[in-house]
Amino acid sequence: MFVRNLLRENDLHRMRLLADLIDVTMFLVDRIFMKKLAAAWLCLFSASVWAETTPKNIIFVISDGMGPAYTTGYRYFADDPATKEVEETVFDRLYVGSASTYPAPVSGYVTDSAAAATALSSGVKSYNGAIGVDADKQPVQTLLEKAKAAGYKTGVAVTSQINHATPAAFLTHNESRRNYNAIADSIFDQRVNGQFTADVMLGGGWLYFQRKDRDIVQQFKDAGYTYVDKIDQLPSVKQGSPLLGLFAEIGLPWALDYPQKRRLLPLAEAAVHQLENDKGFVLMIEASQVDWAGHANDVAAAMVEMADLSDTLEWLEAYVDSHPDTLLVVTADHSTGGLTLARDGEYIWSPEFIHTLDQSPKTIADELGKIDDAKKRAASAEKLLKVELTKDEKESLEAITAKDDKAFYAWVKHYIDLKTHTGWTTDGHTAVDVPVLAKGVAASKFAGNQDNTDLAKKLGSFIQ
Amino acid sequence: MFVRNLLRENDLHRMRLLADLIDVTMFLVDRIFMKKLAAAWLCLFSASVWAETTPKNIIFVISDGMGPAYTTGYRYFADDPATKEVEETVFDRLYVGSASTYPAPVSGYVTDSAAAATALSSGVKSYNGAIGVDADKQPVQTLLEKAKAAGYKTGVAVTSQINHATPAAFLTHNESRRNYNAIADSIFDQRVNGQFTADVMLGGGWLYFQRKDRDIVQQFKDAGYTYVDKIDQLPSVKQGSPLLGLFAEIGLPWALDYPQKRRLLPLAEAAVHQLENDKGFVLMIEASQVDWAGHANDVAAAMVEMADLSDTLEWLEAYVDSHPDTLLVVTADHSTGGLTLARDGEYIWSPEFIHTLDQSPKTIADELGKIDDAKKRAASAEKLLKVELTKDEKESLEAITAKDDKAFYAWVKHYIDLKTHTGWTTDGHTAVDVPVLAKGVAASKFAGNQDNTDLAKKLGSFIQ
Repeated sequence: MFVRNLLRENDLHRMRLLADLIDVTMFLVDRIFMKKLAAAWLCLFSASVWAETTPKNIIFVISDGMGPAYTTGYRYFADDPATKEVEETVFDRLYVGSASTYPAPVSGYVTDSAAAATALSSGVKSYNGAIGVDADKQPVQTLLEKAKAAGYKTGVAVTSQINHATPAAFLTHNESRRNYNAIADSIFDQRVNGQFTADVMLGGGWLYFQRKDRDIVQQFKDAGYTYVDKIDQLPSVKQGSPLLGLFAEIGLPWALDYPQKRRLLPLAEAAVHQLENDKGFVLMIEASQVDWAGHANDVAAAMVEMADLSDTLEWLEAYVDSHPDTLLVVTADHSTGGLTLARDGEYIWSPEFIHTLDQSPKTIADELGKIDDAKKRAASAEKLLKVELTKDEKESLEAITAKDDKAFYAWVKHYIDLKTHTGWTTDGHTAVDVPVLAKGVAASKFAGNQDNTDLAKKLGSFIQ
Repeated sequence: MFVRNLLRENDLHRMRLLADLIDVTMFLVDRIFMKKLAAAWLCLFSASVWAETTPKNIIFVISDGMGPAYTTGYRYFADDPATKEVEETVFDRLYVGSASTYPAPVSGYVTDSAAAATALSSGVKSYNGAIGVDADKQPVQTLLEKAKAAGYKTGVAVTSQINHATPAAFLTHNESRRNYNAIADSIFDQRVNGQFTADVMLGGGWLYFQRKDRDIVQQFKDAGYTYVDKIDQLPSVKQGSPLLGLFAEIGLPWALDYPQKRRLLPLAEAAVHQLENDKGFVLMIEASQVDWAGHANDVAAAMVEMADLSDTLEWLEAYVDSHPDTLLVVTADHSTGGLTLARDGEYIWSPEFIHTLDQSPKTIADELGKIDDAKKRAASAEKLLKVELTKDEKESLEAITAKDDKAFYAWVKHYIDLKTHTGWTTDGHTAVDVPVLAKGVAASKFAGNQDNTDLAKKLGSFIQ
């Protein structure tokens, strides 16, 4: 097949040339002697184009807060010091473009997660705080609702509570992200053509779903959902059952505080497994706590959340390889914390130190907070952080007298920031564009720079 | 041409399908009755593929220091407040991917401009400070040298001195970027097959090229170069002459301090005009002072440097439209300053204020430094910045007693940072990946994430 061999990836000019060439060929063939054969070829071609451009399954991964400093930083965090090369990550491999994230004009240029999730779920810009409603507070159809109405199976798998801004804006509608109980209620109460919006919901949220005034978990069970509250129960759930899995009071613990430092991966695997069916599925997966690490300006937590996401994406990448009728799209809703990979004039960013940690900075800070004696506390910090503190570092820790977890957490984070040369400018969000990754059917449609609403519109166009 | 109409950009699957289809068609056509015609088609096709994949002219634009926060920030700086939409910029329109910038392992993950420029000019990773030499300090062939050896015309057009790190690493070789005089010397002394490396050199640098010990400007004149020292002389230079233009002692003034707030644009126009010839040209254009604004943590200067670059890119975009045998590639060598688009927890970035400035913050600070009386100085600041200062702001300015330009410059920049909600983490560089834009022949080869050395390798592969 010599013409095929001349091709390299994504060459538009040659593709057009080929198109013209085949048109000429078919014209001649048609005119001269093979009218019927030409028609048959055209039919075959059209059917193939359709199959090649419309995914059966859509997996939309949102890494909350993951600006470009996070994907770049993760490359250096994951770099194998035993090799000369800097290894390519899954974020590098699947990178196709970027997305702007600004909300509706009323909220300026810096979005919150609610407005961004509404843009990503519905293609509509809204105000900061909006959950699946437009700037006039009117509900807008979400990707999951459209998919459910069209007969797909649908789901969310997240590490926040499932009524948090991002999953909420795919599952339901509310004028404010802060109405956690009302959002939890509506996740049960709302229907799409008589059906629940999502077949599978995995994340945290006992606090909102098992309340004194209403036990929504029981309601879902009564409606036929399997319910689990431990991640290790997931593999034994019957394939294809509607499934609610809540694994924490609010959000799940930091990835760093799990023995394997991973928990998004098993949620994603279970969700995909549950949703597989002949018609197809639409699944939104959120690495919710990249954002939380950013808000906390906690680079250690951020990098290990990214590692959990990286493993999840590698699994999804292999899934698309073995299920080539699937489209995987990955993006972020915004960047958090003003993370940058150097500080104070030095040309250094050195994330290696983070690998030595086997507990989150917050957990280490909590441990320090339990120790009354200042000297013992410094000794404990050395043990927990696996370092030797300088005299100045010890003194700065010993100077914290209050039983104030925040002060200890701030000290630990500042220590790690200086050790890794990490900079931050805010405990909120920034306006910087975010990465877009894609693989599988129609992945090329996500190339280049685009607005976050375009991502939703493109994904929505595949729902038939 | 119905098959062509089915196509959209960059669809690999359909492209392969077409390739297979045409192969089958040609096989049948060949076997049945049209052997000669098929062969003729194939020749035509191969020739077209070559013409469509190999640019005649290469324009490589490096925006020094332009991380993703700069391109995103510029979109909001350029946003027209009279419209509901946020307008697309040339950076959005031409965006195709991103590039990693890390230097050779000896220098960690954060590059300087010299190592990055060496990577971009030669495809070789080196240590921070290296000008066109590898990690063992051995010279490596640069894109301009390769092009000159192959008979292309070559040039650089920059807003720094032309012996500054980025242009130097395209023009010559030195073990240290700091050896400014030696680099200037070698720009004259070195030859490629008996010819100067560059036919056109536009930028700053009298200090290094007209020294007491050596007048390199005179040497270039004696060697047949036209020399100009004012930008407005450029349009009258005879097309096709070798040209040296030096317009400042060191770097050019800030774009903000020019009446039109632009000066990269006329340099780029003149360079392209001078270099046009039948064989083709290779031109490196650098928006050098995006980086300098970043080092100074001066967001006003940064945005107007970006505006100068934006106009330049729009002109180049139109040039490629009218010269479709040209390839335009744009990237940055690294990100500077740890610029982020929000600070201190507020979900706001508001660059509108910068539009009111008609002098650079540095020039405003210099003006303030000339005024002895503190009250008069505050009044002058209000006039120069076109604002009313609060009592606290006035007091903070009046508190600066020293005749210290740096203190006044710091005050003005801090005022603008607070006004625009701009954050910074360093006066050096960071490790974050940089944007890649491309347009024209073979632009699609620059899609996705790649290393900075890959950019040089791809560009070098087009030189024949």
